[in-house]
Amino acid sequence: MVSTRILAIDPGSRITGFAVIDAVNGKSHYVHSGCIRLPDEDLSVRLKHIFTDVTALLEEYKPDEFAIEEVFLAKNANSALKLGQARGAAIVAASLKELAVHEYAAKRVKQSVVGSGSADKEQVQMMVQLLLKLSSKPQADAADALAIALCHANSRTSGGLEFGVGKRAKRTTRRWTEQDVRKAM
Amino acid sequence: MVSTRILAIDPGSRITGFAVIDAVNGKSHYVHSGCIRLPDEDLSVRLKHIFTDVTALLEEYKPDEFAIEEVFLAKNANSALKLGQARGAAIVAASLKELAVHEYAAKRVKQSVVGSGSADKEQVQMMVQLLLKLSSKPQADAADALAIALCHANSRTSGGLEFGVGKRAKRTTRRWTEQDVRKAM
Repeated sequence: MVSTRILAIDPGSRITGFAVIDAVNGKSHYVHSGCIRLPDEDLSVRLKHIFTDVTALLEEYKPDEFAIEEVFLAKNANSALKLGQARGAAIVAASLKELAVHEYAAKRVKQSVVGSGSADKEQVQMMVQLLLKLSSKPQADAADALAIALCHANSRTSGGLEFGVGKRAKRTTRRWTEQDVRKAM
Repeated sequence: MVSTRILAIDPGSRITGFAVIDAVNGKSHYVHSGCIRLPDEDLSVRLKHIFTDVTALLEEYKPDEFAIEEVFLAKNANSALKLGQARGAAIVAASLKELAVHEYAAKRVKQSVVGSGSADKEQVQMMVQLLLKLSSKPQADAADALAIALCHANSRTSGGLEFGVGKRAKRTTRRWTEQDVRKAM
């Protein structure tokens, strides 16, 4: 039984979500999740906060793999710059621990977890809760990070196969039903 | 005689310029400059490269202050994201050494060094060479970083006064002549 620990990060200029899951024999187990809320301080203090908190997670949970959301088209140049800075701080932390950085586009993450690339935040939260058998709905930023972790767990074991429900599920666009999820777990 | 060592960084997604100068009694002395050329590798490797190289500069030259170019309006969202990531890696390195990060808009840097906010790269190179009495024209990215360092040296000693040529020079927009420069040095 090979267990692979995944740390996923969803960086933002104000809140950075994080998630730790264990992928064991094609199944994913919840370990930890939460979010780093940045203090209302200077840019350098905020970036240091992301770096040190991500480093602390890397040292405490010792993940084997690291995943982050890929940014295709940012809303505008200013938000892209802020997002880039936050990503830079998080990626450097992982890179210094010699972890490869796996990037997944938001659409692919949603597709993998919800079954639709245009799923909303609420649906992501619900599916993450179901897939990881959580007793309550995770906080939105933590849910996004958990979804990235699940997407990575999924692609690394099956080369894109969605939650081990058979090859026919590959690249389908239909939404997952609760029944599908139970089957997948 | 108080000497303040300044490290200035001009981050880019492919080349990051850096400069070290000493500000002594309102005069600036060249210490070191150059550029970090990023390898054609994964994002995480490139960001780690910026972080470790900036950290090495911080540890070798032990600057008292750190300055970086402020980005007001990036060209487009994608280049802003890349620039943001490079900035994030560089700023985190400085922030971990407990250095405050001083940001200067490109326009202000040019204004401070050349005397015109719309100066071109060639003019910046020439003025940096003159102001720091360099035997040859510095490489363009290194020159940009040297200009940021000079701009910071200048604002920290005189609250915006340009190269100590008297209060009347404050916020002028005329171009500097070689004579002005010699007077200022």
